[in-house]
Amino acid sequence: MSRMLTAVLHGPRDLRVEERPIPELEPGMVLVRVRRLGLCGTDVHYFEEGRVGAFVASAPFVLGHELCGEVAAVADGVQRPRVGDRVVVNPARQCGQCEFCRAGRGNLCLNIRMLGSASTRPPTDGGMAEYLKVGAEQCYVMPPQMDDGIGALMEPLAVALQALHRAGSVAGRRVLVCGGGPIGLLIALTARAFGASTVALTDPVPERRELALAMGADVAFEALSADLPNQGVLPIGAGIDEGFEVLFEASGAGAATEQAFELARRGATIVQVGSPLEARTPLPLRQLLVKELQFVGSFRYGNVWEQAIRLGASGRLNLKPLITHVLPFTQAREALELAAARGAALKVQIDIGSRNQGGMDHP
Amino acid sequence: MSRMLTAVLHGPRDLRVEERPIPELEPGMVLVRVRRLGLCGTDVHYFEEGRVGAFVASAPFVLGHELCGEVAAVADGVQRPRVGDRVVVNPARQCGQCEFCRAGRGNLCLNIRMLGSASTRPPTDGGMAEYLKVGAEQCYVMPPQMDDGIGALMEPLAVALQALHRAGSVAGRRVLVCGGGPIGLLIALTARAFGASTVALTDPVPERRELALAMGADVAFEALSADLPNQGVLPIGAGIDEGFEVLFEASGAGAATEQAFELARRGATIVQVGSPLEARTPLPLRQLLVKELQFVGSFRYGNVWEQAIRLGASGRLNLKPLITHVLPFTQAREALELAAARGAALKVQIDIGSRNQGGMDHP
Amino acid sequence: MSRMLTAVLHGPRDLRVEERPIPELEPGMVLVRVRRLGLCGTDVHYFEEGRVGAFVASAPFVLGHELCGEVAAVADGVQRPRVGDRVVVNPARQCGQCEFCRAGRGNLCLNIRMLGSASTRPPTDGGMAEYLKVGAEQCYVMPPQMDDGIGALMEPLAVALQALHRAGSVAGRRVLVCGGGPIGLLIALTARAFGASTVALTDPVPERRELALAMGADVAFEALSADLPNQGVLPIGAGIDEGFEVLFEASGAGAATEQAFELARRGATIVQVGSPLEARTPLPLRQLLVKELQFVGSFRYGNVWEQAIRLGASGRLNLKPLITHVLPFTQAREALELAAARGAALKVQIDIGSRNQGGMDHP
Amino acid sequence: MSRMLTAVLHGPRDLRVEERPIPELEPGMVLVRVRRLGLCGTDVHYFEEGRVGAFVASAPFVLGHELCGEVAAVADGVQRPRVGDRVVVNPARQCGQCEFCRAGRGNLCLNIRMLGSASTRPPTDGGMAEYLKVGAEQCYVMPPQMDDGIGALMEPLAVALQALHRAGSVAGRRVLVCGGGPIGLLIALTARAFGASTVALTDPVPERRELALAMGADVAFEALSADLPNQGVLPIGAGIDEGFEVLFEASGAGAATEQAFELARRGATIVQVGSPLEARTPLPLRQLLVKELQFVGSFRYGNVWEQAIRLGASGRLNLKPLITHVLPFTQAREALELAAARGAALKVQIDIGSRNQGGMDHP
Repeated sequence: MSRMLTAVLHGPRDLRVEERPIPELEPGMVLVRVRRLGLCGTDVHYFEEGRVGAFVASAPFVLGHELCGEVAAVADGVQRPRVGDRVVVNPARQCGQCEFCRAGRGNLCLNIRMLGSASTRPPTDGGMAEYLKVGAEQCYVMPPQMDDGIGALMEPLAVALQALHRAGSVAGRRVLVCGGGPIGLLIALTARAFGASTVALTDPVPERRELALAMGADVAFEALSADLPNQGVLPIGAGIDEGFEVLFEASGAGAATEQAFELARRGATIVQVGSPLEARTPLPLRQLLVKELQFVGSFRYGNVWEQAIRLGASGRLNLKPLITHVLPFTQAREALELAAARGAALKVQIDIGSRNQGGMDHP
Repeated sequence: MSRMLTAVLHGPRDLRVEERPIPELEPGMVLVRVRRLGLCGTDVHYFEEGRVGAFVASAPFVLGHELCGEVAAVADGVQRPRVGDRVVVNPARQCGQCEFCRAGRGNLCLNIRMLGSASTRPPTDGGMAEYLKVGAEQCYVMPPQMDDGIGALMEPLAVALQALHRAGSVAGRRVLVCGGGPIGLLIALTARAFGASTVALTDPVPERRELALAMGADVAFEALSADLPNQGVLPIGAGIDEGFEVLFEASGAGAATEQAFELARRGATIVQVGSPLEARTPLPLRQLLVKELQFVGSFRYGNVWEQAIRLGASGRLNLKPLITHVLPFTQAREALELAAARGAALKVQIDIGSRNQGGMDHP
Repeated sequence: MSRMLTAVLHGPRDLRVEERPIPELEPGMVLVRVRRLGLCGTDVHYFEEGRVGAFVASAPFVLGHELCGEVAAVADGVQRPRVGDRVVVNPARQCGQCEFCRAGRGNLCLNIRMLGSASTRPPTDGGMAEYLKVGAEQCYVMPPQMDDGIGALMEPLAVALQALHRAGSVAGRRVLVCGGGPIGLLIALTARAFGASTVALTDPVPERRELALAMGADVAFEALSADLPNQGVLPIGAGIDEGFEVLFEASGAGAATEQAFELARRGATIVQVGSPLEARTPLPLRQLLVKELQFVGSFRYGNVWEQAIRLGASGRLNLKPLITHVLPFTQAREALELAAARGAALKVQIDIGSRNQGGMDHP
Repeated sequence: MSRMLTAVLHGPRDLRVEERPIPELEPGMVLVRVRRLGLCGTDVHYFEEGRVGAFVASAPFVLGHELCGEVAAVADGVQRPRVGDRVVVNPARQCGQCEFCRAGRGNLCLNIRMLGSASTRPPTDGGMAEYLKVGAEQCYVMPPQMDDGIGALMEPLAVALQALHRAGSVAGRRVLVCGGGPIGLLIALTARAFGASTVALTDPVPERRELALAMGADVAFEALSADLPNQGVLPIGAGIDEGFEVLFEASGAGAATEQAFELARRGATIVQVGSPLEARTPLPLRQLLVKELQFVGSFRYGNVWEQAIRLGASGRLNLKPLITHVLPFTQAREALELAAARGAALKVQIDIGSRNQGGMDHP
């Protein structure tokens, strides 16, 4: 039992199943047997192009950073988690000591390492493998009622919670979400659970708009447009004074950010969570000035994991419809292809080890 | 004594001295005999072009919104200020009842009226006149030690304080100010008084850089550039992690905003206070995202006037060097021309009534 | 139609029905025909003792400040609300001009006047009358789906929202509410709607605990006690590190505040919204220090009315069970006696004018 | 060179000089040769009583937590600080991984260890020794212009900065400091440097009031009293509406906290930084309620050390007068006795190794 299967990315679309030794544990580390792994846009970018923006894979590496699993072993001295615990894994390893960590903004950590990422040299292996080595502090014990599919959704939920956190309170406010991918939908869902008075969402894909409505959005549009107010979201004739109070840009399209500036109410907050597709986005800064907007970035996730776990386990968020496909580990390539065919699938997950286990078999 | 002199703007560069009746007071209003009036970029725009952006003068009107004076009369029932008080006038009349006023963001008031502005139809007359009618609540009694020149600087100081307020705390932080006009200099000066650890300023005009250094900036540059770190402001080799923590864009140049995104440290706040010169400014949003910046507008002034008066009267800010020219009311046109010749003059003021008075004659 | 019926309090338990002239409208004012009026602890105090703390009635006056009605007339120039609108009335008239109003803390207004209150000399008449004169800005137009009973609950809901606002975000946090009267229940209900992960409530009255559970609290206790953790709210053995993150004291009992200090988690916020019954409350300040707590007051309501109306109309809060009794105006005394018999009744309302009207007859 | 001198506390007033082995370095640790050590109230409590509150020394240990020194050795892999660097030592070792560390509130760390403290079993040795072992991340490299005396003041300055941080901005605000010991004086000094408009301080000891005035306070009082307004700090006749906006309780006296509630302006913030002398402090909670105060604890220090170093090195704070006595290591007992004789001395420091060194000899 000293070797494991992994799916290693050697180059664009070059995914190879390989046998590797199970990692040795240094002090403070934990060995996790992966149960469920979700795929996201970053994985797809690496799979299709071997890179994400400035991050180019300098060597073959293992993808995957949305995951939960079971603790198979712990280094000496690690008290929590314990062997046998099911855990959600936070893929970000923060140093805990730099000024940003100390300031509670660990997502800006100067020494951060992300699982399944080419942001380091060599790349850091991720969770598309039977086993994975992580820091004990990266593990959150899963409540018994949380199944593996939900567990592997905690990472995108953490992204959404970070965006909510950056927005300040949405309670009683009119919220707009641009983009109906998993992150946009999770933001809409969470904004509803946190008391937003109106949640509107825009996406060009009809299925995503339908899902948004089914999951709790009040209205969904094909695209932002000047006659948005006439479609019932905002009062007829709403001008500068009747826009949205909190806006989330979760599509990466520059035009969406630009329109967010126009649709924002005086004093509103706009959160950029989608990764910008262009190097420069032309923005109407006069809107920022005369409406005294706050325009803020939201990057990865800071101190939101405990909140994500509590929320995910509470049953108050209807997360299940997000998972549109679950494939076995033997079909990892097909899973990536499915995720790459945008629109058809929403969240594709790979079942790596949840079904072939006795004992605590969670659906 | 029922008529007064005014300088009325009839069109671009068409300023005419006219005699008008002294205004009648409605309930809650106060008649102020103007003592000192400062000129700013907005006045110059109206003078040169008859408009400022979308605000076009629909009729002849009186310019001027930076002023102090003496209370000549008050409407029945007004208890404060009293006749004889010297007062600084807040040119913004807010309704006090709309949702933005109630939320403490009166600068976003839905019913705001600004003195000396063509934002209303007809335009609202300002202070380039012997007398002016304002709401009692627009008046702040001047402490005895505050002279008229300083009193007429309270309006631009309020603009600077609003920007500081929007930035959050600058105490112990590295601050960059782009633009060395009166607002930029006042921001630099105030950031120093509020405990900034480093205050840097950029301006292409050498005299303004010299003034910035004389007034308290630590360093001043001709322009932002990639080798800024090599010039001693930031540690050699400073990259993403060693930028400025609070940045103020006070020039209106889009390139300055763009560079602010590059020079900002992770987690930094950028305040846009300069009025953008272009309709669209191309911005590197990826910086906003991965550094989780806050980019906020600062518009006019909210609840900062009491702070401005206290600060202006405290003697802790060296405000005097900002006033480069004081002309008599008979030279109002020359004063506007001087203010229009950018660079040569910094703050031009018109002495309307401080010298021809007996009694409490302040310098 | 120039006279109206009122119920005037002449002294302790001395309530007299009197005919009075319908008030004349000064500029900016609105005449409201009262439809529904709720009673609260303050009304009861005045009724039983003729005073509330330091506020002693200096003359006979009309009680009542939780109300909605219909606009019967408006002064010249008032554009909103219009005659015929059903409106919720904010009983606080703020000046909109003092420094606290300007800072968005209008509940601390230096010139505030409250309906139905002896805080002024003479007292300010309230809504236990057929007609009432208020400022136009005190009126919030009721959405069609909001019935009168809910409309008259907007005032206590505003009190609850102010407490939530003072607490900061409750989203994903463990919340404790001390006291199950209308305010405590509304806070619990709203904390649930704003995403609290756990809502616990304490009250010695069994009916109130049952109601709390029915309305959305997770757990309800007879009293706070050291073995609270053992009752399932907090993990077994929870010590200093596993307390509540947001605590609301809504009973006024000093012992409850003291226990809140003990049950607070490190870094927690405690909101005092209940009016303290004693002049001095002994508190364990060492807890405040070593856990770095925030202990804040919440007084009346600031800028929360629009949020209250939106929330009340959204149907997301199950407010109806709070209204335990509705009596006709002819039984105003009985209504006050019922409200005074604490425990038996929760919220007692008086139907002053909702049933004797044609047209838009709301339940 | 494998042994060092230490001053070990064996019990109340039982301080013994002992020779001990120089500590071995585990991974991530640094050996600091102590140069200067300051004494504070906690050291005095341990010296006089062998305990501080609930913390009782379970074994002999070494006192001292205000210190700077020189790096004598670093464990393999430690890159910063380097051997030879002069460093200020943060006596708090935080885990960097618990939820409080992650939230930027490392002073509430669940696993914190403090130098020179009996809060752990066995106690953790401090800096009253020639050498000390600390985590690399506890070291801040001293700028060349910072001398050892100032370096050893960084710890109390960090306490003061934490209190300022908890207060929110003091810029342009009226500040009251209760208690003129080192912490109170440092708060007053820093509030001045951060732009407070008025800084008042109270202390019964005349020398401390004089020092406060010399160091930058505007006024100093023997005690808080009802006629404070008449003494020139606040406008004559100032009542509830003209109190202080930010108040720091730095004496530990319950009566001071109580008076702070009375002297606070509506909406003010009171920071408790002094360790309460009594188990229960009777407080007028009605003031907290009707003035909507914020009353917050400030404990040790979180993410303020970089700010402290920058500020200490800037020369903008006149810190030197705080150091009233510097004694050689051979007089450690006398130094403790001097510090215990409250009033006579302010800050007593022990020169452990700054004078007997060649090379970079700082005063």
